[in-house]
Amino acid sequence: MPRLDAGSRREQLVAAGVELLTRMPLEQISADVVAGAAGVSKALVFHYFPTKRDLHVALLRATAARLLVELDPDPDLPIPERLRAGLDGFVAFIERQPANYQAVSRGAGSDPQLLAVFEDTRAAVVGIIAGALGVVEVPPALRMVIRGWIAMVEESVLHWIDERPVSREALVDFLQRAATTMLPEALALPAS
Amino acid sequence: MPRLDAGSRREQLVAAGVELLTRMPLEQISADVVAGAAGVSKALVFHYFPTKRDLHVALLRATAARLLVELDPDPDLPIPERLRAGLDGFVAFIERQPANYQAVSRGAGSDPQLLAVFEDTRAAVVGIIAGALGVVEVPPALRMVIRGWIAMVEESVLHWIDERPVSREALVDFLQRAATTMLPEALALPAS
Repeated sequence: MPRLDAGSRREQLVAAGVELLTRMPLEQISADVVAGAAGVSKALVFHYFPTKRDLHVALLRATAARLLVELDPDPDLPIPERLRAGLDGFVAFIERQPANYQAVSRGAGSDPQLLAVFEDTRAAVVGIIAGALGVVEVPPALRMVIRGWIAMVEESVLHWIDERPVSREALVDFLQRAATTMLPEALALPAS
Repeated sequence: MPRLDAGSRREQLVAAGVELLTRMPLEQISADVVAGAAGVSKALVFHYFPTKRDLHVALLRATAARLLVELDPDPDLPIPERLRAGLDGFVAFIERQPANYQAVSRGAGSDPQLLAVFEDTRAAVVGIIAGALGVVEVPPALRMVIRGWIAMVEESVLHWIDERPVSREALVDFLQRAATTMLPEALALPAS
């Protein structure tokens, strides 16, 4: 294997871990497992990620960054298509790794660093949606409603993955209509 | 203090703990603290709740049971008033103990027993809402949408508590309208 500089080596390890994350629970991803997948020594993984939690935080951050790109593949799309592309991207993301999203988002509460990855990601999604609506400074009422809508999307999609009670298209239609109804209402809510 | 039978004694301890929970984080509620509040020995608390987790699960179960009563104070109300009463009850509940709901719901993921309290409570809320709609066997698509709406309500109210971006009434109006729009749509969603 060619020698890599520190940044590239770290990226290589994270990429191997992110790929593993589509196939196994986060809890099972240790330095050993990443070393095996990346073809490097366990000591090298420990050099970049001294603890399992350092490794997990890095993998979740990288996964979240990838998700954000998939949620907004083309910012030049008109708003409805952009919203739909984001919902399609989220459903596809969950379909690739349903167990992890649920396990990690529920288990993250006991760990401030893992929780911060979810919080930062949701904040970035709020920014994407507000940006699509042409809002630069997000009014607090709109932020509240977007956060509520995101929670609804997460819960509905995680529930859908288990039971598939409606078609994928009906699910995305429904969530898109919910946004189309709720977001303009949020902009009109009176401040307290 | 008069002697109580085992069931009454346990209830007394749980009641003392539930009251404490409105004033302090769950994490701080130990056998010592409950013993102090109930005026009994720590050994007696340990007799009923051998571990801190046993105590916490019992306190959350009792709090959740109380919440369910507050969410549906009068099943004979017409649907819109019943829905509104439930939302008012939930907001009031969160207002009494904002830190705990968030901390516990986020931290519960690492503990199957605590998680089960939240799961059972949400399932009971789904039952209340479906019952109000006159639905006996909840179709999977409706269950998914009700779960999504509950997630939106939880997230919005927890966000509202921190920032109060709109009046309490505007918040409840908004969440009620969301239900009124989404639930009939859910009943009309085609099965997959």
